[in-house]
Amino acid sequence: MSTARATIGVDFGTESARAVLVDVADGRQLATAVHRYASGVIDRKLPGSDVALPSDWALQDPDDYLEALGATVRSVLQQSGADPSEVIGIGIDFTACTMLPVTSEGTPLSRLADLSSEPHAWVKLWKHHAAQPEADLINDTAAARGEGWLDRYGRRTSSEWFFAKALQILDEAPHVYARADRLIEAADWVVWQLTGVETRNSCTAGYKALWSKREGFPEQGFFAALAPAFADVVDEKMSRDISSPGERAGVVSAEAAVLTGLLSGTPVAVANVDAHVSVPAATVVSPGSLVAVMGTSTCHLALSATERVVPGFCGVVEDGVVPGLYGYEAGQAAVGDMFAWFTGLVSGSGEPDPDLHASLERAAASLVPGESGLVALDWWNGNRSVLVDADLTGLLLGVTLSTTPEDIYRALLESTVFGTRVIIETLETAGIPVDDVVACGGLPFQNELLMQLTADITGRPVRVAESAQAPALGSAMFAAVAAGPELGGHASIVEAAAHMARLGATEYLPAPESLPVYDELFGVYHELHDTMAGSTSPMRRLRVSQERARMARVPA
Amino acid sequence: MSTARATIGVDFGTESARAVLVDVADGRQLATAVHRYASGVIDRKLPGSDVALPSDWALQDPDDYLEALGATVRSVLQQSGADPSEVIGIGIDFTACTMLPVTSEGTPLSRLADLSSEPHAWVKLWKHHAAQPEADLINDTAAARGEGWLDRYGRRTSSEWFFAKALQILDEAPHVYARADRLIEAADWVVWQLTGVETRNSCTAGYKALWSKREGFPEQGFFAALAPAFADVVDEKMSRDISSPGERAGVVSAEAAVLTGLLSGTPVAVANVDAHVSVPAATVVSPGSLVAVMGTSTCHLALSATERVVPGFCGVVEDGVVPGLYGYEAGQAAVGDMFAWFTGLVSGSGEPDPDLHASLERAAASLVPGESGLVALDWWNGNRSVLVDADLTGLLLGVTLSTTPEDIYRALLESTVFGTRVIIETLETAGIPVDDVVACGGLPFQNELLMQLTADITGRPVRVAESAQAPALGSAMFAAVAAGPELGGHASIVEAAAHMARLGATEYLPAPESLPVYDELFGVYHELHDTMAGSTSPMRRLRVSQERARMARVPA
Repeated sequence: MSTARATIGVDFGTESARAVLVDVADGRQLATAVHRYASGVIDRKLPGSDVALPSDWALQDPDDYLEALGATVRSVLQQSGADPSEVIGIGIDFTACTMLPVTSEGTPLSRLADLSSEPHAWVKLWKHHAAQPEADLINDTAAARGEGWLDRYGRRTSSEWFFAKALQILDEAPHVYARADRLIEAADWVVWQLTGVETRNSCTAGYKALWSKREGFPEQGFFAALAPAFADVVDEKMSRDISSPGERAGVVSAEAAVLTGLLSGTPVAVANVDAHVSVPAATVVSPGSLVAVMGTSTCHLALSATERVVPGFCGVVEDGVVPGLYGYEAGQAAVGDMFAWFTGLVSGSGEPDPDLHASLERAAASLVPGESGLVALDWWNGNRSVLVDADLTGLLLGVTLSTTPEDIYRALLESTVFGTRVIIETLETAGIPVDDVVACGGLPFQNELLMQLTADITGRPVRVAESAQAPALGSAMFAAVAAGPELGGHASIVEAAAHMARLGATEYLPAPESLPVYDELFGVYHELHDTMAGSTSPMRRLRVSQERARMARVPA
Repeated sequence: MSTARATIGVDFGTESARAVLVDVADGRQLATAVHRYASGVIDRKLPGSDVALPSDWALQDPDDYLEALGATVRSVLQQSGADPSEVIGIGIDFTACTMLPVTSEGTPLSRLADLSSEPHAWVKLWKHHAAQPEADLINDTAAARGEGWLDRYGRRTSSEWFFAKALQILDEAPHVYARADRLIEAADWVVWQLTGVETRNSCTAGYKALWSKREGFPEQGFFAALAPAFADVVDEKMSRDISSPGERAGVVSAEAAVLTGLLSGTPVAVANVDAHVSVPAATVVSPGSLVAVMGTSTCHLALSATERVVPGFCGVVEDGVVPGLYGYEAGQAAVGDMFAWFTGLVSGSGEPDPDLHASLERAAASLVPGESGLVALDWWNGNRSVLVDADLTGLLLGVTLSTTPEDIYRALLESTVFGTRVIIETLETAGIPVDDVVACGGLPFQNELLMQLTADITGRPVRVAESAQAPALGSAMFAAVAAGPELGGHASIVEAAAHMARLGATEYLPAPESLPVYDELFGVYHELHDTMAGSTSPMRRLRVSQERARMARVPA
C-alpha cells in the first residue's frame, strides 16, 4: 500500500467499550480508547426510576453503547492523528447473548416514555439469569420433541440465550412483547445504528439462537409448543436473513458519521461475538489449535472442517468463527474469578486483592508438580463444559497443617488447567485434534505460571496472542475484510490474520519431567470429577441442604 | 475441716509447667504459677552443643522439669500465703509418652559428661516421631504373633509410645541403651525426684507401654522377636510393680523439700497423664459421659465398667483413669491447630492470628446449619481415631465464589464435631453409651460456637469444666486422695471430685431444628470419610504423588 490504511475495531464488554485503530498492513495498534457505560450493569434499579429489579436480573441501557461508540472512535481518531479518509472500515464485537426489543425503526423500547419504567423494555445483558424457567421449558420441550438441533448444543441450552430471554418477555410482559417489532442482539443493533440497515450475524444466531446454516431456525411447531403466541417469533420479530463474519453490513450513515467522526460511506462489518472474533486475532484460522480466551472465565474455541457431536460443548456453528469451518465453543465458568476469590480470602479483606497475585504466583512457581499434595475441582462457579451444570461446586483435597497459601494458589491454577484438559480430551475423542493451545485475553499477560502449567498439564505447546486487545483487534481485522482488497483491505479473514495478527515471542513447552506427575494428578482430578458429578454424590446432597437452609431463612 | 487444707497439682505440658494450689474442701484455686522450660522442645540442636538433630526428633532436658517444679511450687506457696504445713499433698501429671534413660540412682544420662552430646541420652518428648520404623516392627511382629493385647489398642500402636522409643535407643545407640539402668516415663521420674522412690503409674504403663492389670506386659518372646537384646527390657530397665492413680508414691524427701519449699514428709501422689487426670477434674468419675480435652488436638476419654474392643481407639486401660473402671481413649489430631491454621491463611501472614478467632466466630455464629454449603474432612493432621492413619489429609467440599471466610471457619468447626460424632457412635456400637459430653482444656473457653455445635451435631448436652486448668486441678485432686482422709484429704477420687470439681453454669443443649440438617451433613461427612480412607482413594494417590515429589527434591 502506498498510503496508510487503517481500520477500527470496537469491543463492547460488560462494563465498557474499547476501540483500537490499527494499521491494516501489519496490525500495529496506533491508538486505543476505553469508555465506561454510564449505567454499567443495571441489576438493582432502572436508571432514573424507583423500579427495583429482582435478583438474577442484569440489564443495560442501549444509549450507553452509542455514547461509548462515539467517544471511543473519536478518541482513537484524535490520538492517532489519522484522517477519517484513511479509515477504510469499522467492525464491532459484543458480549452475547445481549438482546433488546426495538421498534421497526430500531428505536429501543426503553427509550419510549410509556415503556421506560418497564424492565422488559431494556437490554437483557448476557448474564441476565432470570429466564431459567423459560430455558428449562425450552430444554424439556426440545428433548420431548426429539429436536435434532439439540445435539449441536451439548443437549442443553442456557438461560443466557436468545429464545429464553425473548420468551421471558412474552411470559412476564406480553404488552412489551407486542410492542417489540424486532428482537435483536445488541451487536446487530449497534451495526444497525452505524449503517441504518438491519442485519443479523451468523455467530450470535448460531451460538445463541439455535440457528444453523443448513437447517435455519427450529421449526414453527417447536416455538408453538413453548407458547402459542411465540409460534412465529422468528418471522414476526427476527429475520431469516443471516450474514457471515467478514461480510459488509453496510456503510456508515450520515447520522453515524456525526456520532463517530468517521466519513459517511465507510464500510461497516457484520457484527460478531467478543470471544469468537478473538480467534483470528490470535492467528488461528485453521483446525488444530485450541484458542483459550482467558479472563474472569475462559471461553475455548476450536475449528474443524467437519461437524461432530461434542458432548458438553456450548455449541458448534458452521461459519461461526471463520467462514468455511465449524467453530466449536466450550467454557470454564470461573478462572480468573476463582484466583481473585482466593486473593480475597488470604488478604483478610474478603475483597479480591490484585496486588497479591504476583507474590502468590512467584511462591507457587517455586513448587514442583505434586509437591503441594493438593488437587482441586475448579467448580467455584459451577461447570460449563463438559458437564454443563451450574449447581456443581468447588473442592479442595489434601490440605494439612503445612499447607501454605501458595500451595493452594498453585492447586487452583492447576485445577483450571485440568478442566481445560478435560475439554481437549473431549474434543479429541469426538475426532477433533488439538495440537497446541493459543491463549488470549487478559489473564495470560498477568500469569506466566498459568501458561507454563497449561503446557505441562495438557502436554501441548502454548503461545499467547501478542495483542492484549484481541477482541478489538479481531473486529478491526473483520473490518479490513469487509472493506476488501479494492479499498486496501484484505480478501479474507485468513489473509487478514496473516498480515495483522501475531503471537508473542514466548513459547511455553511442556516440561518432560512434569508430564507423568500431572498424568497422575489428572487421574485424581478425573476421578473426583466423575464421582462428584454423580446425581447422589456428596456434592449434590450438600447443595440440596444448602438450598433448603437458604429457603428456611426467607420469612414464610 | 477446722483448719485450711490445700493440695498442689503440677501439670507438665509441652512448653511449660503450671502449678495450682487448691482448697481441698471446695477446689477453689488459691494460686497459679507457670514456668517455661529453658530449652523448650529440643528439635534442632542439643543444648550447649553443635549436635544437630534429624527431622522428626523432639527432645527435652529433664533438668528443666525440676527447675519448673521448684519455681512453680514456690510461687503458689508465696502467692497464696499458705503455710507449707497446710499443704497436705502434691500430685503431678505429664505429657506422655515422654521418657528418658537414667542410672539406677535416677540420674538422667543426659547429665553425664560422656553422654551429654548423645541425643539418645535425652528425654524423648511425646511428639518425638523418629521411631516409626520401630513402631512398624512392633505392629507387624504383634500381628504376626497374634498378640491378644493388640485389640486393646485398636490393633495399631504408635511411634509415640514407650517401646518404640526404647527400641530406637537400642537400635541406634546400643551403648546408651547399655548404660541405661532404667527407662522411665518423665512423669514417674519427677515423682522419683520428689520422693527418692521409683514408682510406675498404671496410666502411662497401660496407655503407652502395653501393660494391663490382668495380663501385665507382653511376654518376653514378643520383645525377643523385636531384637534379642530387647528380650528382657521390662525386667532389666523397667518394673512390673505398677501403682494406680490416687495411691501415695511416697513423701517429699529432704532434698525435694529444699527444691520446692514444701515440708519433707508431705505426701506425693503417683504420677498421671495430663488428659486422663482431667476427667475427674471435669467431674466425670462414672460411665455415661464423654470427656473431650480440647486444645490444639483433642483427647477423648470415656469410662465403662466393662472391657470392650472399640475399633480405632488409642487404648483401653483398667484403672487407667478412675480406679475400678476401664478408661477408653480416642483422639483427633488437629482441632485448635486447624482453626489456627485457617487464621494464618486469612490473616495474610501465614502465621496463626489469635485475634481473628473472635470475629470469625461471631460471623460464623450468624449462619444457620447447612447455609455455608460446605463440608470438610478434619484430617489436617491425619486421623487419630477411628482410622488411626497419619497419612490422611484434609478436604473442603462445596466452595463457590460466594464462600466467605466465616463459611469456611464454621465448616472447619463442624468438621471436628463430625469427627467427634464418629468417635461417639463407635463407642456406642461397641456397647459403651455416651449420654453427654463434658469439655475441658483451653478451647471450650475460647469458642462458644464450637460448644454449641458439639451439642447440635452430636445431639447430646454439653457442659464445660469450670476450671480452665483441669489437668493441674486433677493432679491436686489425686494429691488429696494420696493424702487421705486422715490428713484432711479425700478417701477416693470420686469423693474428691464431689468436693473439688465443678462444671460451668452454661449447658449447651442440642437445637431441635438443627438436628435433621446435621444428620444430613453428617451423612455427607461419613460418606467422604469412608470413601477417602479407602486404600486407592484419590486422597491416597495424591499423598503418594506428594511423597514422590518431595523425595525428588532431595539431591541424590
